[in-house]
Amino acid sequence: MKYFVTGGSGFVGSNMTDRLLSLGHEVVAYDNLSTGQKKFLSSAESNSHFRFIQGDILDSHDLTTAMSGCDFVFHFAANADIRDNLKHPEFVFEQNARGTLNVLEAMRANGIKSIAFSSTGSVYGEPDVFPTPETAPYPVQTSLYAASKDFGEGMIESYCNGYGFTGYIFRFVSLLGERYPHGHVFDFVKSLLRDPEHLRILGNGHQKKSYLYIQDCIDAIMLCVNTFGNDETTHIFNLGADEYCEVRDSAKWISERMNLSPEFEFTGGIRGWTGDSPFIWLDTKRIRALGWKNKLSIRQAVERTVDYLLSHKWLLEAR
Amino acid sequence: MKYFVTGGSGFVGSNMTDRLLSLGHEVVAYDNLSTGQKKFLSSAESNSHFRFIQGDILDSHDLTTAMSGCDFVFHFAANADIRDNLKHPEFVFEQNARGTLNVLEAMRANGIKSIAFSSTGSVYGEPDVFPTPETAPYPVQTSLYAASKDFGEGMIESYCNGYGFTGYIFRFVSLLGERYPHGHVFDFVKSLLRDPEHLRILGNGHQKKSYLYIQDCIDAIMLCVNTFGNDETTHIFNLGADEYCEVRDSAKWISERMNLSPEFEFTGGIRGWTGDSPFIWLDTKRIRALGWKNKLSIRQAVERTVDYLLSHKWLLEAR
Repeated sequence: MKYFVTGGSGFVGSNMTDRLLSLGHEVVAYDNLSTGQKKFLSSAESNSHFRFIQGDILDSHDLTTAMSGCDFVFHFAANADIRDNLKHPEFVFEQNARGTLNVLEAMRANGIKSIAFSSTGSVYGEPDVFPTPETAPYPVQTSLYAASKDFGEGMIESYCNGYGFTGYIFRFVSLLGERYPHGHVFDFVKSLLRDPEHLRILGNGHQKKSYLYIQDCIDAIMLCVNTFGNDETTHIFNLGADEYCEVRDSAKWISERMNLSPEFEFTGGIRGWTGDSPFIWLDTKRIRALGWKNKLSIRQAVERTVDYLLSHKWLLEAR
Repeated sequence: MKYFVTGGSGFVGSNMTDRLLSLGHEVVAYDNLSTGQKKFLSSAESNSHFRFIQGDILDSHDLTTAMSGCDFVFHFAANADIRDNLKHPEFVFEQNARGTLNVLEAMRANGIKSIAFSSTGSVYGEPDVFPTPETAPYPVQTSLYAASKDFGEGMIESYCNGYGFTGYIFRFVSLLGERYPHGHVFDFVKSLLRDPEHLRILGNGHQKKSYLYIQDCIDAIMLCVNTFGNDETTHIFNLGADEYCEVRDSAKWISERMNLSPEFEFTGGIRGWTGDSPFIWLDTKRIRALGWKNKLSIRQAVERTVDYLLSHKWLLEAR
């Protein structure tokens, strides 16, 4: 099989690329390098089954050409900045909504009919049901980021229904692990390296969040894709650990891993920012019914992320 | 109050314009006249509180300028062709997704914070619960048209949450009545005028659908807008009759109203077209709790639509 990976030099895309190559597949990674890191592909670059193409999903012509000859698309390219998404609505719209339509149209032009898509647990807004199942009540969106991901899902679903596509939609919690490029562990480690005595935490620190280790996430995606094949329907899965923690728990684990005892300072409020959900915990019965479970707990995933960042400090300085 | 109505010369927009003018408000109708009819505004044109601006919601500059000085936006401009939406995905995306972002950004540029939006009962896909409430399980989209309307809702919701907008989202069943410009009654009347002996019906005719008379719809919208004011939240309402009929019932009523007894021919299958929902019946308890009810039954609304089309045959030829 020949796979096309948008966002191929990003956190999820580069880990997926390495996994696919290790299984003997061919991979074309497509990335505009706006946030992706070419260094993440250094191992892939030595594999003859791998090809990197620098390009933008907003460039339909380049995208369509690059996709030629591939069998399956992993669409991970996106603006993932949920925190500041309302500062640049035009950018979120283009990267996430327009970009996903371009990917679908490039697939149609190339006769490719299978796509896996990185959605987000944020599409549930602020749900009433915990853990939140895939069939939760029709959500009210709280960020343009999540609304654009929800639309990505909807576009894929309509292409499955109308054009016989097969769609795999994964609603992730926040991912952790090797090549993790932004988020609270990133911010906390970077801040503690600069000032080991103090740690500023957005909100009151009681926000409850679930996380998932990147390799557990890749395991789940590969299991789904291999289970259902090209059955011309849409498959929707929550992916997350079967637990959650508070942000202040995570702050404690990070500090301990760094052998530090900083004073915590809280900005206050139940949310870290506008559109932040105070509680994210996904019901993952559907994916677990296929035999998947996460190998690392949230604490283990946090600690592995700290270790990774401390041994890859260049990444902390990259943004 | 000064209202801005996108799609102001369309079916819903022109009826809303007349209503607002009759209540003494000022109205700016904005329309590119691609499917709207200038004739629908002939009464409005004689009112000094009315102004028509020919423009496209895809032209951000014109849109932003036209909106200046308005207090409230009714956003009805859209590509409403659900039946053929997958023939031109690019067009649906631009008109419905990009167009709605442009409207929201033009509002932001003008400091306008209240918007009412015409969504659709199609956003529920093919639901399992009937009548379908606003809190139905997270839907799977079956058409790009509905996915784009769902995204319109999500963008408005995120602007309410992030920018303090007030949003009114109305999920309509199919509307009927004066100025009705497309849909099955339109097609059946046009077909029967050409061939009174035969009527071709898409699907097996057992598709169950709910409908609503346009003036009942306008009543409901005005009631909601006046009930909640600018409370910086999103209000979501299903709008429909509290009943449904089969397409073959409607075909019978239309034929009888035209004093005809055509032979019905069915194309077969439970859906009229790809993405057609075999059963649309919305739970309208939420709007009825505000004191609204529809004045016309579905049969009365169908008959009034037939009468209107027969006395406005120019409209049947307009597309």
